[in-house]
This record gives sequence, structure tokens and C-alpha cells, in this order.
Amino acid sequence: MTSLATGANSAAQVGRADQAAGTADTDGSMQERVEFRTEPARYRHWRLTIDAPVATLTMAVDEHGGLADDYELKLNSYDLGVDIELYDAVQRLRFEHPEVHAVVLTSGSDKVFCAGANIRMLATAEHGRKVNFCKFTNETRNGIEDASANSGQTYIAAVNGTASGGGYELALACEHIMLIDDRSSAVSLPEVPLLGVLPGTGGLTRLTDKRHVRRDLADYFSTRPEGVAGKKAVSWRLVDEAVPRAQWTTMVAERAHELAAHSDRPAAAAGIRLTALSKTRTDAEIGYTWVSATLDRTAGVAAITVRGPDADPPADMTGVREQGAESWTLALTRELDDLILDLRTNEPALGTWLLRTAGDAGRVLGHDQLLLDNADDWLAREIALYLKRTLKRLDVTSRSLIALIEPGSCFAGSLLELTLAAERSYQLDGVFEDEDPDAEPAAVVLAAMNMGPLPMGNGLTRLRTRFLGDESSLASLTGRIGEPLEAAEAADLGLVTFAPDDIDWADEIRLATEERASFSPDALTGLEANIRFAGPETMETKIFGRLTAWQNWIFNRPNAAGPAGALRRFGTGQRADFDRKRV
Amino acid sequence: MTSLATGANSAAQVGRADQAAGTADTDGSMQERVEFRTEPARYRHWRLTIDAPVATLTMAVDEHGGLADDYELKLNSYDLGVDIELYDAVQRLRFEHPEVHAVVLTSGSDKVFCAGANIRMLATAEHGRKVNFCKFTNETRNGIEDASANSGQTYIAAVNGTASGGGYELALACEHIMLIDDRSSAVSLPEVPLLGVLPGTGGLTRLTDKRHVRRDLADYFSTRPEGVAGKKAVSWRLVDEAVPRAQWTTMVAERAHELAAHSDRPAAAAGIRLTALSKTRTDAEIGYTWVSATLDRTAGVAAITVRGPDADPPADMTGVREQGAESWTLALTRELDDLILDLRTNEPALGTWLLRTAGDAGRVLGHDQLLLDNADDWLAREIALYLKRTLKRLDVTSRSLIALIEPGSCFAGSLLELTLAAERSYQLDGVFEDEDPDAEPAAVVLAAMNMGPLPMGNGLTRLRTRFLGDESSLASLTGRIGEPLEAAEAADLGLVTFAPDDIDWADEIRLATEERASFSPDALTGLEANIRFAGPETMETKIFGRLTAWQNWIFNRPNAAGPAGALRRFGTGQRADFDRKRV
Repeated sequence: MTSLATGANSAAQVGRADQAAGTADTDGSMQERVEFRTEPARYRHWRLTIDAPVATLTMAVDEHGGLADDYELKLNSYDLGVDIELYDAVQRLRFEHPEVHAVVLTSGSDKVFCAGANIRMLATAEHGRKVNFCKFTNETRNGIEDASANSGQTYIAAVNGTASGGGYELALACEHIMLIDDRSSAVSLPEVPLLGVLPGTGGLTRLTDKRHVRRDLADYFSTRPEGVAGKKAVSWRLVDEAVPRAQWTTMVAERAHELAAHSDRPAAAAGIRLTALSKTRTDAEIGYTWVSATLDRTAGVAAITVRGPDADPPADMTGVREQGAESWTLALTRELDDLILDLRTNEPALGTWLLRTAGDAGRVLGHDQLLLDNADDWLAREIALYLKRTLKRLDVTSRSLIALIEPGSCFAGSLLELTLAAERSYQLDGVFEDEDPDAEPAAVVLAAMNMGPLPMGNGLTRLRTRFLGDESSLASLTGRIGEPLEAAEAADLGLVTFAPDDIDWADEIRLATEERASFSPDALTGLEANIRFAGPETMETKIFGRLTAWQNWIFNRPNAAGPAGALRRFGTGQRADFDRKRV
Repeated sequence: MTSLATGANSAAQVGRADQAAGTADTDGSMQERVEFRTEPARYRHWRLTIDAPVATLTMAVDEHGGLADDYELKLNSYDLGVDIELYDAVQRLRFEHPEVHAVVLTSGSDKVFCAGANIRMLATAEHGRKVNFCKFTNETRNGIEDASANSGQTYIAAVNGTASGGGYELALACEHIMLIDDRSSAVSLPEVPLLGVLPGTGGLTRLTDKRHVRRDLADYFSTRPEGVAGKKAVSWRLVDEAVPRAQWTTMVAERAHELAAHSDRPAAAAGIRLTALSKTRTDAEIGYTWVSATLDRTAGVAAITVRGPDADPPADMTGVREQGAESWTLALTRELDDLILDLRTNEPALGTWLLRTAGDAGRVLGHDQLLLDNADDWLAREIALYLKRTLKRLDVTSRSLIALIEPGSCFAGSLLELTLAAERSYQLDGVFEDEDPDAEPAAVVLAAMNMGPLPMGNGLTRLRTRFLGDESSLASLTGRIGEPLEAAEAADLGLVTFAPDDIDWADEIRLATEERASFSPDALTGLEANIRFAGPETMETKIFGRLTAWQNWIFNRPNAAGPAGALRRFGTGQRADFDRKRV
């Protein structure tokens, strides 16, 4: 088994000091933990320069800075560590730099923009690692599109050399693609002809659905390893413009300023510094300020608790700005984001996540309301968008999610989304007689945050997806906004799945988690991927629902990953040996 | 390798007398050919009774009538042979029985409605066979829905015993589901908990998107092997009504007549008899009246030619009725349908299909127009719907499709759809100087048939899918309806991909097919599945695009198909041994 995390100095391993050395795998091997926290001072692969209103994000991958030491990141190819830095930069640009209205994504080399995911890494990585890597890179690219679409921070790909595979897909995630016209630089998707796999970060879907490349041209392009350059790339819609080298710098700057001019971000506001997360991590527990998890390896369960705010919200956004990264919604979201990534990557055998909350529902709603009341404030908007993206990350996580709604919980508004994201929810009917007979019974509260600001990848709210085609149930619910709903009523309204009482509670939860742990993890992944996204599809759901599944299948087939497969034979000088049968 | 076609008397082997014994597989083994032609007199598994306006289709699977002899079709479980008969019955009901306005689908046993696909068959079948089987069963179920939605022939599932897995999925394909309420009959999807695979014929998608079952209930239901019965099944929307045994027969008849009453099919018209197709089949050639194919095993290519009509259409639908199954569009569609199924199932190593036509474009358009002018005639409607379904079958076929447009071809209207379904098209610019210097140069003709009546699974025409988001190109094309477009112009308009001349033609086609044959067949399958369906998604595209891919992946994983996997261990008394890591 390949460890992706044995490199010594990688940015992605910041914070390892406070960690146990690794996690015992089911096959007994040890796998180093991947850490997602980093900051610009530690970047090895990217340079971030800011000349407001334009920022430039320059990819200059350190060949020797891979997460594992059995490959070299040549030609600006990337692995998870490179993408962790990119994710960090995209996040910081949004929060720390309101004055940045356009971001130019370019390469530090003048021959190669980016060669995509490192082939040797892909060829040797264990299947689950490969799939998880693709998922994270997809989320980062969707985040880039979200910045262009919703944050007033528009991304421009300044493709100043050849962009192949994942390199071109990175450009495709940008709003505007400029290709240098120098007789050698081209864009290409050589995965099918050279590697026997698919472009793994949405390239095919973005060709047809975003850029409206004609399907026969998309097919031809995707089977042509040398790609397409210059004017032809423009006329096929693969890029937006081809610019001669002599005008390159001027034109890139010009476009960036043009696009920046459309931004509604403030010109002079101060940003919020994303200070280091305080995190403790052992083999049994992960702790932050507002979020914690206990890891039960025997049961295959991670029990996650999210704590509500310990104070009312500030009176206005000035107060939030003063609290900065400590303000409750932002802090909670950052912690939840990090926890999801940590568990997803480092704890694949914990197949069920139990989701609990603890705290005051009214305060949750208060913090929500402050953001909603200030939807035209750039920071309020950023916080809500980040929460939206983090909940989407939960939606595409291949773990069974079970929400437990108990006395003392605060599943209201934004936190109610956790129950709506779950496969099922259990709400205690009454109280735990032995623990606290005088407690208030658990209640859930529907609020404005559930009605629009936090859509799923399919473009619908979780509530609407839940009641797809059932307008009457939805209507009865919208009449109950703001009301604490106890178990029997919430179950009646279809808001929670089950409402057992004190006598049955422990048994029902135990049975549900034991049963889940007894099923095939692969079948559960497929089941959840199919049921979670009812209704309409978008590029996002196509990328996660369709592309991911095809890629998973192809990754598992001998034609790609077998000893004579294309992925394994790439670069050896030997041709792949295919079973020619179509399936 | 498992042969699916070794049973001696199976209906699916009708017509074998005129066939070679089998096809050499790439691994040297021989695989018996599966034959899709059958007729009611030969059914072993279904009884079709007609009491107009209601037909009853009774499943009574012959345990010993499987396509292979290494499993028994107990409990009304099915294999490809059973489904071939179902497909035949659905088709004949549409064409031979205009007087049938509702179809009751029920079981000949009073304990078991249908236990779904035979597990032992699934556990032992080679991967490609399994995937192909699922695809065909999905197409048949989509065809049932098409009959209810568009043909005035509404399907009612009279679930008179337990319906599990594929059995319940068959019911889900019906417009109305009645479940007998007898304390033992339930509906269930036990694939995930018992077999470690997904429901393979659209069950999950139909739960959420068609029947609007709440996602948490859908999750719970899909992990509960014993299923759900009676009133709970109704309140969860799993079935439409639960009917006590005492009222069963009366209620089923009542509902069938109610639904039949909404039909717009004629009460007294005579049907069109679907006479036996004339087909010749060798290892090198497949021939019908209007369609033929030559099979080049060295190149991995099937070269398909469709011939246009040899006469003008009859003056009206009375003439078509007199021609019956010999009328051009119907005959051609039946032949093409059979050819697609034959090649798809029996010739997996022929990865590229070349599509040619030969004949008079004007006559093609004439036959098209007769159908369009009589859209309110039941038979004209049936023929157009069948052509629509057959072209959709082509869309979901995992083969690279290349259309070759040469002098003497008739790619017009309905036949132009073949080029629009293809990955790419080549139209000869000029003529073949050595062959026929005086020929008319090849032309394509856009017509009304391309503008709506033959949508893809995504609900859009192939033309609109091709020009997704490019309204101006689409507008320039609609101005050219009815005009023969020669190569340069057709390429200019984006209607064909390439327009090589006589000098380059042979080389370009050879290069394209050789190149295609050199790529990973799996990667091509994934590429084509992603690029063919741009734009919106429907239940159909979700089933073929998303579910299929997940199922393929799961079928390939040791947790299902390995020696200790759930699919292989089912029924042995041993529990499956899972790798617990989530991917």
C-alpha cells in the first residue's frame, strides 16, 4: 500500500507534531495522516501576490515536495499536497482579501501551465486514496467557480504554456481562459488516449455543459493527446482567446481589470485573518473549539458533536468583523470543514458518522439572522457561502450520516441542515428519564436558513429535495417556521425519520449503527450517492454522481490499473495490453 | 467464463438454426450467441391474455428454462431470456393490439410476485454480460413507461405476492402499483443488505424522482431486507394501494378499466402483426431486408448500412396498414433494434460501429412525412415512438459510433439522427473520382423529424443537445430545413464533424478507426457516457448515466464479486467478508 504522506517537509503536514503517528489500516499497515491546514508562509507550490484589485496565483510546483517520496512532481503536475495549498489560497483570498476582485491563475514556468495530476502518484495510489483525491480536487475547482459566480472574485486562467489533463481542467474551472498563442502551447485532455482513464476533475462535463463545446469536437479533442492550440482552440470554444506572446502580459492585466470592474466587493475593506485552527488530534478523538469527534474503531463510527454559540450574536457586522475568525458561524464552519476532510481522508474505516448538536437553538437562529440581515455585506455573504460549500462537502462524503436529536441539542436553522443532510434522523420523544427527567424535550426549528441560502449541488434546498414533488408537505412545513417542534410532531411533519422514546432509544440507535456497519461499504456508497440527489441535476451533481462513478469503475479495471493497464504502463515505453471487450 | 446461452429450448434461441455455432472470444473460449427474436407461441415464462380493453401479462417463470443451465429460475426470478420474452410482449401489445388500453402485470404464483434477477446467474456471469443484461432490462422497463406515457396503454402492477429487488423495480416501472394486503406480501429492495450491490433497474431513482418517496424513508426501505407491506407501503408512497385478498380480483379489474378509459387508442382497429424478421447471421455478416452489417474482427469494427426505402410512401396510413410489418420505417426500425441487441450482446470486441446509409433521401423524407402528418393515428404514433426508443438504444450503447456520409447515402430526417447519435461524422467533400466521378456529391438533409419527435433520454433532440447553449448555430440550421447540404457547408454549419476529400478520405477513416481500436475500451465507454448526454438530466439519463456507472463499479469490487463478496456468498449460509474502508 502506498502512503501518500511520507514526504518530510510538505505543507500538508503542518500540525503533525500534535498528532499520533498514524492510523492502523484494516490490513495492518500504517498510513500517515494527511493534514489539510496550511498557510501561505508554508506554501511550497504556489505564489500568491496581490496588487488590488487583482491577485495572481502562480503555480510553481516543487518537484521534490510531493506528499509521498516515490514520485516527482515534474512539469507542474500535482498531488493532494499541491491541491491543499490551492484550496487554502482560494479560501484566504475570499476572507482575507475583500479588495481582490479578480484572480489570475497562471504558471511560474513559461513552457508548461500545468500537466495535471501526477501520473505516477495516480498509478501507485491505493484505490480509495485516488478516489478521495479526485473528490477534494473537484470540490476545490467547484469552489473556484463559486467565487467567480457568487463572491465577486472572478478567476481568469492565464494559460502561459501547455495545459494538459487536470491542468486544462483547472483552467476550465475559471471564468475566462486565455491561451498563449506561441505555436507550442496547447490545451488537451489526454487521459483517454494516454492513460486509459477519464479526465477526473469535471473536464468532460465542463466542455459540453459549461463551455458548450460541440459533442463531436469534445470527443475528438478528448482523444487527441497533443490537444488543440491557437485560433482553433478559440473557435471550438475550448478557450476564450488566444493571445500572442508579445501582448500577453498587457492583455492578461487588461482582462483581469475588466473582470474586476464588475465586482461588487468593497474596494477598501479590511479582510478577516484566517488564524490557525486550534485542533487536538489523537487516535480516539479530534477536538476543536466548537466541533469534536470521538472515533470508535470497533463499531466503525465517528460521533460528531457541534456546539451552538455561547453568546448572542454581535449587534451588527462590525461586531462580527471584530470577532474575526472567532465569530461563531465562521469558526464552526472552518472546524467542520477540517473535520470532514480529516475523517474522509484519514479514517476510511469509520463508515458511519453520528451527528449531534449541543447548545441554545435561539442563539443559533440569532447568529443565522445576523448573516441573513446583512446579505449585502461582503463578509456575511462569504460566511454563508462557506457554510453552503461545507454542507455540500458533507453531501458528497461517502459515509452514512445519522442525526441524533436529543435534549439539549440545537438543531435549528443552519444546524438543522445537518439532519437534512443525513440518511436518517432520530429525535427522542420525551427525555432521558435517568439522566435528566426535568430537561426540555428535544426540539428542531425550521428557519429562513433552510429556505434558500444553503442549496445542495442539485440547486435545491435540502428541504425541497427531501419533499421533492410533495408540495403539500412542504407547505405545511413552511407554516411552522420558527416553532420548536418536538419529536412526535417533527416526525408527523416528515422533518425527522424516527421518534423513539427513552425506552427504545439506545437499542434503536445501536441497531441502526450495527446494521449499517454490517453492509457492504461499496453498496452503501452507491446507495447514498443515488438517493441523496433527487430531482434536477447540475454540473456539480454530474461531476460527483456520474463522472465519479465512471472513474471509480475505470480505476478498478485491469485496462487501467492492472499490471498491463494504461495507467501503470504510462512512461515505461511499453504499450498497454487491453481486454478489447466493451462493457 | 459463464455461457448464458446453453439451455436447449429457450425462447431466446429461436432462429439459431441459421447461425454459426458461436463466436470465438478474445480469450479463445466460445460463447453461444443470444438471440432476441421470439413470439408468444414460444414463451416459456409469460402468459399473455387479452380481454379488451385490458390485457394481462402473467409472469410464471419456468425454473428450468434459464438461458444457462447452471442456475434455476426459482421464485419467479429472471434472467435475460425471461426479459427477452417480456420485451417481445410489450412490443406486440403496442403494435398487434390497438384495442388494449391497459395492461395488468401480475404473477402466476399467489405467494411471490417476482424475486428479481436470478442471484446465481448474477453471481456467476462474466462482468460484461451482467452489465449488458442490466442495460437491456432497464430499456424494457423504460419502454413500459413509454407505453403508459405516450401510447395510451397504461401498465398496472398487480403485486399479488412478495415483490423483491428487480421484482419491485418491475412494479415501479408501472403507472399504478397495487399490493395485496395479506400480512405476508411486501415490496422490498434487499440488494444492499443481502447482496452488496445496488438495485440494478432504476429502483433507487424511481423511488425518489418518480414516486417521491422521502429520501430518509427510501434509505431505510433500501436497507430493510423484509421490505414494507400494507398501509405503511401506501403511506410511504411505495405502492398506490393495498387491497385485501377478498377484493383483489374485483379491484384490479376495476382499476384496469378505469385507467383504460383514459386511453386515446382506438377501440376496434386491427393491429399490425409483427411477422418474423428475415435475418441471416454468420460470423462475418448479419443481413436483414433494410439493414446489414459486416463484422471485421481484426479491426474490431462492425460496418452497418441502412438502406432507404425503395418506393415512395403509400398515400395514407391505410396503405401503411396494408404493408403492415413490411412498411419501411417499421421494418427498418425492427431490424436496427435487433441488430443493436445482437451486436451489443454477442460481439463485445467490435468496439467501433461505422454507420452508413444508401438510398434516396427524398423517399426517406416522404416516409417520415407520412408519419408526421398522421401523428394522431395510433399506428403512425407507434412507429415513431419505436424509432425514438431504438435511437435511444443506440445512444446508450457502449460502442464508438462513426457516421460515414458518402455519395449515394440518404442521411435525411429520421436517418440523419444516426449521424447526430454518432461520436463523429465524416462527409465526403466531392465524389470518389475512381469509383463514380459523375455521382452526386453526398448531402445531408435536416427535416422536421430532427426537430422534436425523436428526443434523446435527456428530453432534448439530438440537434439541440449538439448545440447546447449555442442558440445562434441552431437558428442558422433551422433556416436550412429540407435543403441538401454538401460537405463543406454541412461542416460549416456544424452538422458534421469532418469533410475530407477523395484524396484524404480512406486514410482519415482508417486512422480514426485504428486509433479508436487502440484506446482502452473502458475509458471510451466512460468518455462516451459522459459526452453523449449534455444538458438536463432525467430519470432515464440518471439510470443509464449514474446508476449504471455505480453498479459497474460495485460489480467489480471484491466486496460484491470477490470469493468472499456478498453476491458470491449469498445463499451459502456464510456471511460476506468486507473490506470496511469507504471509498
